[in-house]
Amino acid sequence: MTTTVAAYAAPSGGAPLEKTSIDRRDVGAHDVLIEIEYAGICHSDIHTVRDEWGKQTYPLTPGHEIIGHVKEVGSDVTRHQVGDAVGVGCMVNSCQECEACTEGLEQYCVKGNIGTYGVKDKDGTITQGGYSTHVVVDERFVVHVPDGIDHAAATPLLCAGITLYSPLRHWEVGPGSKVAIIGMGGLGHVGVKIAAAMGAEVTVLSHSLAKKDDGLRFGAKNYVATTDEDAMKALRGTFDLIINTVSVNLPMDDYLALLRFDGVLVELGAPSKPLSVQAFSLIGMRKSLAGSCIGGIAETQEMLDFCAEHGITAEIEQIGADAINEAYERVVDSDVRYRFVIDASTF
Amino acid sequence: MTTTVAAYAAPSGGAPLEKTSIDRRDVGAHDVLIEIEYAGICHSDIHTVRDEWGKQTYPLTPGHEIIGHVKEVGSDVTRHQVGDAVGVGCMVNSCQECEACTEGLEQYCVKGNIGTYGVKDKDGTITQGGYSTHVVVDERFVVHVPDGIDHAAATPLLCAGITLYSPLRHWEVGPGSKVAIIGMGGLGHVGVKIAAAMGAEVTVLSHSLAKKDDGLRFGAKNYVATTDEDAMKALRGTFDLIINTVSVNLPMDDYLALLRFDGVLVELGAPSKPLSVQAFSLIGMRKSLAGSCIGGIAETQEMLDFCAEHGITAEIEQIGADAINEAYERVVDSDVRYRFVIDASTF
Repeated sequence: MTTTVAAYAAPSGGAPLEKTSIDRRDVGAHDVLIEIEYAGICHSDIHTVRDEWGKQTYPLTPGHEIIGHVKEVGSDVTRHQVGDAVGVGCMVNSCQECEACTEGLEQYCVKGNIGTYGVKDKDGTITQGGYSTHVVVDERFVVHVPDGIDHAAATPLLCAGITLYSPLRHWEVGPGSKVAIIGMGGLGHVGVKIAAAMGAEVTVLSHSLAKKDDGLRFGAKNYVATTDEDAMKALRGTFDLIINTVSVNLPMDDYLALLRFDGVLVELGAPSKPLSVQAFSLIGMRKSLAGSCIGGIAETQEMLDFCAEHGITAEIEQIGADAINEAYERVVDSDVRYRFVIDASTF
Repeated sequence: MTTTVAAYAAPSGGAPLEKTSIDRRDVGAHDVLIEIEYAGICHSDIHTVRDEWGKQTYPLTPGHEIIGHVKEVGSDVTRHQVGDAVGVGCMVNSCQECEACTEGLEQYCVKGNIGTYGVKDKDGTITQGGYSTHVVVDERFVVHVPDGIDHAAATPLLCAGITLYSPLRHWEVGPGSKVAIIGMGGLGHVGVKIAAAMGAEVTVLSHSLAKKDDGLRFGAKNYVATTDEDAMKALRGTFDLIINTVSVNLPMDDYLALLRFDGVLVELGAPSKPLSVQAFSLIGMRKSLAGSCIGGIAETQEMLDFCAEHGITAEIEQIGADAINEAYERVVDSDVRYRFVIDASTF
């Protein structure tokens, strides 16, 4: 049993998205039906529908930054009520049994978390994302949107926000921490805001100073062009944590040199070629090169509450569904400040 | 003012070591004069006197695994008394002021720790190591050798022991931990013993099963040949910590795949070429690739006490000074089980 709803989907790999309709499963005992208000555009959406991360099943509706309201709840749902403002991020299911799931780290489910789109769900169907008017999701993967936060601008927090919040928390950023964020795009700009709100001294490392004023406004204390060799040299040995939001092959040893002892460089994106690292860059000062992937569901709730408390949202450009394909081109060209959000009433 | 003592030294880079005499500084207010009993041979000694880690100043006396007795103490010495059994490891000085030194992490001194040989000391002289009858060392870099531990067999603990103990402690190995040690040479065999004594389930990953019986005797539960593809496959996602004691370029992604979520792979040695790592190998399960360098002085004391308590020493082959050059060849050929220790009475 299914319900047919309006959506945008890629009919095949690399093709422009077009208006269509998709099926949503009936509301099961543990499900909530969400009427979507906003869906964010993440660069991952583009990589996926262009088959850049592997061949997909089409047609495919992307979108894993979703905010809306609960329209209907299943018989056993306890966490959400009709009318609640809720959000869905990058996952809609996991095994719920493994050590990772048990620890609230559903993103690291050892059987593989089930992504919000393009992944085979437990019922055998391929998940379809948030570029749509409605979605049906297990209540355990639905978070509350706190009062007082702007829904459109909060939508990107469901992916970009948690992707930065989780490593900042995991590596214990707080007052006194010195944090560098490499890149100030969709992910980076939210990272600057969150890290500053946690009390860290934040430095943005960007290829140019074009967004410097924004960076300082978002809470960064320093904004350095990575082409400025003297400025980069002056930063050596200073950071506790560097978060790289840029999916290009950087000279890793130069960036590891910016860490103090016990410092950690966290990769969020995967460049096309392997990272190249001299072992001495790690050994000399017990440094680490790590990776991090979104965050758990409880942590996503914590992040939304933190952002609401600190008045943090993404900087967005709101669009209608007919502008999705143009928006994709602009994301690829880094021509957005800083995240596109689609008004779901236009699907 | 100096005292001349017998020693073995390399007269130039790559030349065989030969009997000679070297100067030791007079005993300063904070110094202790140690009559050396034993000096261990570390592969680092060989790399250094062969200029493989950069050009050195010659003649150079290597040796940074030293056990002996205190013969004389300076006027302000409080930690050691004449007659005490003491040890010296890889460092003989540091700034004592920086954040790392203050935290007891002298090995990560931001001004650079002063190595036991081949490094310019605070007085401008080049440090000379333990292949000698006597050495003068600041009391803060001298540790107590606990009663009941065999001095010859404990000597390698001052480098090999602390190099393994420190990462095992830092990454919180204990009962329930699953630890893999890559390579079972001078470092690895001590690592197996220490990790097992900490309560971990230890697996040795070696290029062959030649030392399997030894490994199991040292406390390993499993011993796997890295050429056994099925056995390696079965280990995927299982380890909390992997410590790589082998300085060769391994397929890092294959080894990172053996870690569970939040697992850490620690490099102790530096292969000649950079490490090559796919970012996805780190991101997917929040894994880390880290480095570690010996350990702090307080931690070295803790390690010796731990080893004495658990009856842990290195497996050694004791030699006279005239066998040093032959021993070097055998170390390079991995033809030693598991560490050479020189009887200092033969210098």
